[in-house]
Amino acid sequence: MPEIRQNIVTKDWIIFATERAKRPEDFKKHFAKKEEKPDFSPNCPFCPGNENKTPPAILEIKKDNAWIIRVIPNKFSALVNEGIPQRKTSGIKRIINGVGVHEVIIETPAHNSTTGLMEEENVREIIQVYKKRYLDLEKDSRLSQIIIFKNHGKSAGTSLEHPHSQLIATPIVPASVRQRFEEAMRHYDENGVCVFCQMIEEEIKDQERLILEDDKFLAIIPYAAYSPFHIWILPKRHSASFGEINQEEIKSLAGILKNTLAKLYYGLDDPDYNYCIRSTSIDQKEVKYFHWYLAIVPKVTKIAGFELGSGMFINVSMPEESAKFLRELKI
Amino acid sequence: MPEIRQNIVTKDWIIFATERAKRPEDFKKHFAKKEEKPDFSPNCPFCPGNENKTPPAILEIKKDNAWIIRVIPNKFSALVNEGIPQRKTSGIKRIINGVGVHEVIIETPAHNSTTGLMEEENVREIIQVYKKRYLDLEKDSRLSQIIIFKNHGKSAGTSLEHPHSQLIATPIVPASVRQRFEEAMRHYDENGVCVFCQMIEEEIKDQERLILEDDKFLAIIPYAAYSPFHIWILPKRHSASFGEINQEEIKSLAGILKNTLAKLYYGLDDPDYNYCIRSTSIDQKEVKYFHWYLAIVPKVTKIAGFELGSGMFINVSMPEESAKFLRELKI
Repeated sequence: MPEIRQNIVTKDWIIFATERAKRPEDFKKHFAKKEEKPDFSPNCPFCPGNENKTPPAILEIKKDNAWIIRVIPNKFSALVNEGIPQRKTSGIKRIINGVGVHEVIIETPAHNSTTGLMEEENVREIIQVYKKRYLDLEKDSRLSQIIIFKNHGKSAGTSLEHPHSQLIATPIVPASVRQRFEEAMRHYDENGVCVFCQMIEEEIKDQERLILEDDKFLAIIPYAAYSPFHIWILPKRHSASFGEINQEEIKSLAGILKNTLAKLYYGLDDPDYNYCIRSTSIDQKEVKYFHWYLAIVPKVTKIAGFELGSGMFINVSMPEESAKFLRELKI
Repeated sequence: MPEIRQNIVTKDWIIFATERAKRPEDFKKHFAKKEEKPDFSPNCPFCPGNENKTPPAILEIKKDNAWIIRVIPNKFSALVNEGIPQRKTSGIKRIINGVGVHEVIIETPAHNSTTGLMEEENVREIIQVYKKRYLDLEKDSRLSQIIIFKNHGKSAGTSLEHPHSQLIATPIVPASVRQRFEEAMRHYDENGVCVFCQMIEEEIKDQERLILEDDKFLAIIPYAAYSPFHIWILPKRHSASFGEINQEEIKSLAGILKNTLAKLYYGLDDPDYNYCIRSTSIDQKEVKYFHWYLAIVPKVTKIAGFELGSGMFINVSMPEESAKFLRELKI
């Protein structure tokens, strides 16, 4: 019998199609073997020596006089960092001019590196840079929401293979982000507890959906995961804004993120994936009802007519099984 | 300067990335040339003569003693049509057993047919069958929401190329569907008018986003379309439930749907697409605030980290330009 589980955070219902269910190993097949990549690619605009092919850097982290991380404005920016957002409404038409920020974080000089295989120290530096950019942009009163994300692999939307993440800051709070806040607020009002704090407590007690855990963070496959190997990495300390992450937490997150991605790399043959940091909006950073986290979504599911029409997802793998597979995988 | 437009119905914000904007013709390139298909394929379970490869039909429409449309249960059903939905809650875990309906509508005996090129009469029969199934399932008190949809082409999620649509009925109202109702309800309370009726009136006055119109229906690219060539076909008469469509409206919808899909076929070289019918939930079919419609989404956009993290979409085509392109295309 299939199960329909509800995501306690978004209230989305997910169908677990047990009749079509696959074993964790079966998802390997989804991923084409990647070609061997060189550690330097002469035409790659993100490789050292090609800095003149990108806009000037906003921030560079250096080691022994060479950059190890570089933040640049996106050359094909979705939003423009000039002017003041102005909202106009006329009948059904509502519009704001596209003021905002779109940056690229080049994560390493090595063209063929990938987070799961990096030194933990490098991953720590990347998260450190995320925090720096977050805190800097938070001061810009034109902005409402900062979204940090990564596209790994072609099917996940990357056009350049050199390891990089992106940051987009928008002058509005996206509707679906606002809806998450509303649901979380309602949970807090009804139960007097942050829904994520409650989830963390129950997931630690249950154990079955845990992948990794230390004293600061845990990685789980949520009870109502949207798709196979959909992973959440959550800080144990209640905190609504990613910008509030402290040095010890950065160290812990770097380890958990690196090792979770290494498990995906070895367990599923380097799947394409997206990750994003879900943080609160800039204007509500101290709220008790929201809790930031990082979501990793390997690219295994297509969005077709049913997902379009219902907003529901059909998941063909059980979170408990996939979590066990990753938890027990030796890396 | 990019624009950020808000969808008045869902309150979603869409970024129109004018710096990256493409001309309507450019989207042709997204679609691989389809191979010539035979009108009969011996191994296709949906071709005439292979009826024993599918579960027994729920409904058959016949002409001259042969079926022209066949409705069957989905062999790999996401939900199971037995038992009673029972909801259980324990802490963060909320679950319902997967009771529901999953049917396939085989639209024609011809393996290589496609809606845009069919006789209008065939399209009328398909919509007639949608209505029959909708009204039949509406009586099942275990069900809450009926979703009718079509996946055309591999990238849109089809595994079988023989023309077919699907129907899934769920025992819950999906969260994102519920949110649309809430937004529409709020609009009605604030303005005393159905947001869709208002949109129809303004779109007819504006003309610039119109593709096709007759006295019963219109096809538009919405002001805040999520993706290039995202199309809505709306009935002019206020009606919350698709099941309430009358015979004259079926005739009109068949013409508008066929001709809109023909314009996509010739204008964009037979793009892969999904369509779905967005109807009200079964228990609120006479409400004044919701209005059913059919949405067509050609597969041109990938969902990557930004869409995942924000729920926002970046559209690289302007609705006014794409609508003009389709409106003026002679078919």
